[in-house]
Amino acid sequence: MGDDTVDASGGRRRRGGRSSKRADRASAAGPSQLPWRQPSLAFEPTRLVSDDQLEAIHIASLSILEDIGMDVLDTDARHLLSAAGADVDADSERVRFGREMVLDYVASAPAEFTLHAVNPERNLRMGGRHTAFGAVASTPNASDIAGDRRSGNTADFRNLVKLSHVLNAVHLHGGYPVEPTDIHSSVRHLHCTRDLLTLSDKVIHAYSLGRQRNRDCLEMVRIARGLDDERLDIEPSVLSIINTSSPLRLDIPMLQGIMEFSARNQLIVITPFTLAGAMAPVTIAGAVAQQNAEALAGIVMTQVVRRGAPVMYGGFTSNVDMKSGSPAFGTPEYMQAALLGGQLARRYRIPYRSSGVCAANALDAQAAWETVFSLWGAVMGGANMIFHAAGWMEGGLRASFEKMVMDADLLQMLQTFLEPLIVDDTTLAFEAIAQVGPGGHFFGVAHTQARYENAFYSPMLSDWRNFESWDEAGRPTVEQKAETLVGEFLEAYRTPALPEDRIAELDDYVARRVAEGGVKTDF
Amino acid sequence: MGDDTVDASGGRRRRGGRSSKRADRASAAGPSQLPWRQPSLAFEPTRLVSDDQLEAIHIASLSILEDIGMDVLDTDARHLLSAAGADVDADSERVRFGREMVLDYVASAPAEFTLHAVNPERNLRMGGRHTAFGAVASTPNASDIAGDRRSGNTADFRNLVKLSHVLNAVHLHGGYPVEPTDIHSSVRHLHCTRDLLTLSDKVIHAYSLGRQRNRDCLEMVRIARGLDDERLDIEPSVLSIINTSSPLRLDIPMLQGIMEFSARNQLIVITPFTLAGAMAPVTIAGAVAQQNAEALAGIVMTQVVRRGAPVMYGGFTSNVDMKSGSPAFGTPEYMQAALLGGQLARRYRIPYRSSGVCAANALDAQAAWETVFSLWGAVMGGANMIFHAAGWMEGGLRASFEKMVMDADLLQMLQTFLEPLIVDDTTLAFEAIAQVGPGGHFFGVAHTQARYENAFYSPMLSDWRNFESWDEAGRPTVEQKAETLVGEFLEAYRTPALPEDRIAELDDYVARRVAEGGVKTDF
Repeated sequence: MGDDTVDASGGRRRRGGRSSKRADRASAAGPSQLPWRQPSLAFEPTRLVSDDQLEAIHIASLSILEDIGMDVLDTDARHLLSAAGADVDADSERVRFGREMVLDYVASAPAEFTLHAVNPERNLRMGGRHTAFGAVASTPNASDIAGDRRSGNTADFRNLVKLSHVLNAVHLHGGYPVEPTDIHSSVRHLHCTRDLLTLSDKVIHAYSLGRQRNRDCLEMVRIARGLDDERLDIEPSVLSIINTSSPLRLDIPMLQGIMEFSARNQLIVITPFTLAGAMAPVTIAGAVAQQNAEALAGIVMTQVVRRGAPVMYGGFTSNVDMKSGSPAFGTPEYMQAALLGGQLARRYRIPYRSSGVCAANALDAQAAWETVFSLWGAVMGGANMIFHAAGWMEGGLRASFEKMVMDADLLQMLQTFLEPLIVDDTTLAFEAIAQVGPGGHFFGVAHTQARYENAFYSPMLSDWRNFESWDEAGRPTVEQKAETLVGEFLEAYRTPALPEDRIAELDDYVARRVAEGGVKTDF
Repeated sequence: MGDDTVDASGGRRRRGGRSSKRADRASAAGPSQLPWRQPSLAFEPTRLVSDDQLEAIHIASLSILEDIGMDVLDTDARHLLSAAGADVDADSERVRFGREMVLDYVASAPAEFTLHAVNPERNLRMGGRHTAFGAVASTPNASDIAGDRRSGNTADFRNLVKLSHVLNAVHLHGGYPVEPTDIHSSVRHLHCTRDLLTLSDKVIHAYSLGRQRNRDCLEMVRIARGLDDERLDIEPSVLSIINTSSPLRLDIPMLQGIMEFSARNQLIVITPFTLAGAMAPVTIAGAVAQQNAEALAGIVMTQVVRRGAPVMYGGFTSNVDMKSGSPAFGTPEYMQAALLGGQLARRYRIPYRSSGVCAANALDAQAAWETVFSLWGAVMGGANMIFHAAGWMEGGLRASFEKMVMDADLLQMLQTFLEPLIVDDTTLAFEAIAQVGPGGHFFGVAHTQARYENAFYSPMLSDWRNFESWDEAGRPTVEQKAETLVGEFLEAYRTPALPEDRIAELDDYVARRVAEGGVKTDF
């Protein structure tokens, strides 16, 4: 693992025998990090419950859809569902889904597909044992150590996009890392999408906040990729998270997002927001049964719009803090729900989305244990896409620059952990063991010398000095080291190449749409 | 999960409808915690490598034992091995083990057994899917926030034993939590074993540092349990960790420990100390192949002494920091090795020991992520015993009071995570979902109200307040909260009941043996 390293701009190069990670770190190319690579699980994901239990949850969710139904708030969506065989109430927004209909439509969703980025080297394979890590998204606040916590603004938005871009462990943008609240929401999607497409070349996300915003984003993605509509329609190139309004509702903008994007074969990620004890039953089995019902309803909707359109099964079930009612993350219940969501998604052969999250206010032990526990559930649950995996704090209320670097370190550790273990005569090292013999030492032997520089993951943040050296150095903290690295990574950031004509076309599009007033809002 | 809670003395009581965890925490009974319970995995442990790869590692380790062999430093042990069919070199300490002999002896080790504590309620089941968490052991230094770091002493030793006792998430003592260096080593085992047996009623460990120390400890365990020798010989009541002197050596005290304890049917935990890149090959496959060879040799030795004697397969393979040569813990390589060790132990149907560890100097994010990563490897690897799981820092050079409480919180989270998910009509909550309906809220319904107080794990340390409240409170840290809890737990500590005559007999034994000079040392 880790036979080569890269400069911060993401280009891979073979490491020479005399270079070292330390040397790279000091170079103008920025801190050393692992090369860009989409990880895969080499082992079977964890099956938390028995097949019988899984079937019971499946059946319960079909009963929920058949007997209780969902409120589908958009008229066009209800018409489509009615035509597809759903039982649409004449006097309300309630839609009931027969189980045959659900299973029929769910079966047409693809098990695997490629999500295209502006830079083809950043394309992501979704499904199977593939996984990918997304940057924090949709927080109202940002922070760094020097500036503390503040409301989201354009400068922080752009810097977080740049940092997400330069970190190889971040595979896609899950949205705006922070909301730039200084840009009016009528035109925010235009400015932000241009920034995402020009400051980075990784896969991007479009918010479903009314049909026109989806259309604007899709058109800008088309321009940035330099495709015609026909080609775009066969290459999923942008995703949109569709949160159900749990319990059991799909609201108008979300339904419009599905109708816009599924019709164009773009990726929809259905993610019920089923907080156990609040928007879902207090029991994990019940909360996940409801999650499953809502996810299946959303998946059906995508397939009603267009059979074969790419869609992911999102799991976000967590529990609330029963003292305050606020959501908790990285809890034992979160881990169970994350594993269970993966097991259900695999039952339907639909790629699975989970998250790397925490509720912590500080970049402390709690932030780390909640984040790693959530990653434990997501990774062992076989998640194909792990959102919010770099930079998320406070249950999603804040994006932290230092947390983004800390998380990138954790994600690189997971990437290393997920590298398939090579078991062959060379790695089994019988000759080296014979050469060293009982009581010897391995450092000097050729087997070690040929490999020691890159044999193990070399963490960006961990302080492995002994106590005395660490004490003498003034007992530096992880946060301080992360702060330094944020600066170094941002300094190493380079704008990725994009043909000038595409940039000009993007700028023209934004200018025109801004002049038109963007998307009218009532404020 | 968590339908009942307990006071800090460990007694379980059913929680009344009106009591709350917060109220319990303020009571004289000490901070609220989960009841004593030995967790089990409800799911299959992770299989990191394919069966073919596992077989290749197995075969490689058999070749190591057959062709290279081990240095077995004790003459008596070599005689026993020779009589059992091993190929003992006449002119050296080298012993080679034919593969048939290895497989024959390994097959006689029991797959499951009970480890007896002074208090039968603290007995531990070893093997199968059972797991148990041990306290930090064998560190030369201790620390708390108020007193910073200092050399091990009797007061810290006793307080850490008390804290390990009062924490229900700690299932056994893995040794001395810190070395009381103020007690001369000729008599340290006598004083410490008496303390362990009287200050706590959980399973204890005896260090293998020469036959007489093993005998003294075993005799004291016999006294504390109030048994005769015959009964002791059928009830494993004490364990000893046997570290190989990697690579490929078993030293005299360790071999004597096996001969003393296996002969008396007491538990031996063979744990090779195979640090990849130092005492083992730099490749994880090679390091684990060597670990496996050393573990198998130790297991064979126990079965040569007494067929059927309880023994565990210990995995401690980690990597060194290639910059400094010091051991690293909770690394990606550690996780792979922990999973692989479990897979090998299950192949031999021998209970598996792993560890919860970190290299951190501070109780910071690094301490948390390394600890949780190591627990991830251990738990998903199906470890039946997880040593050092509460209080370990600095790669084993320090026991921290606050870390012990933080780890107890993490272990309780894992205990909750490992509770089997109940999937039935009640937990699937169809009626509650129907009652709430689309757009409703679950907090008010009977299904929630009947369960909300204990539906979710309520962490001891996590700060889940919103940022504003946390900021107003002066941004308190996890360490500060842990410090407070240490005090509260120690205040709630009560000496467990032990018949007076046994205490008197223990005291007499210690007094007599101390008067005899304990075990002679050359310093």
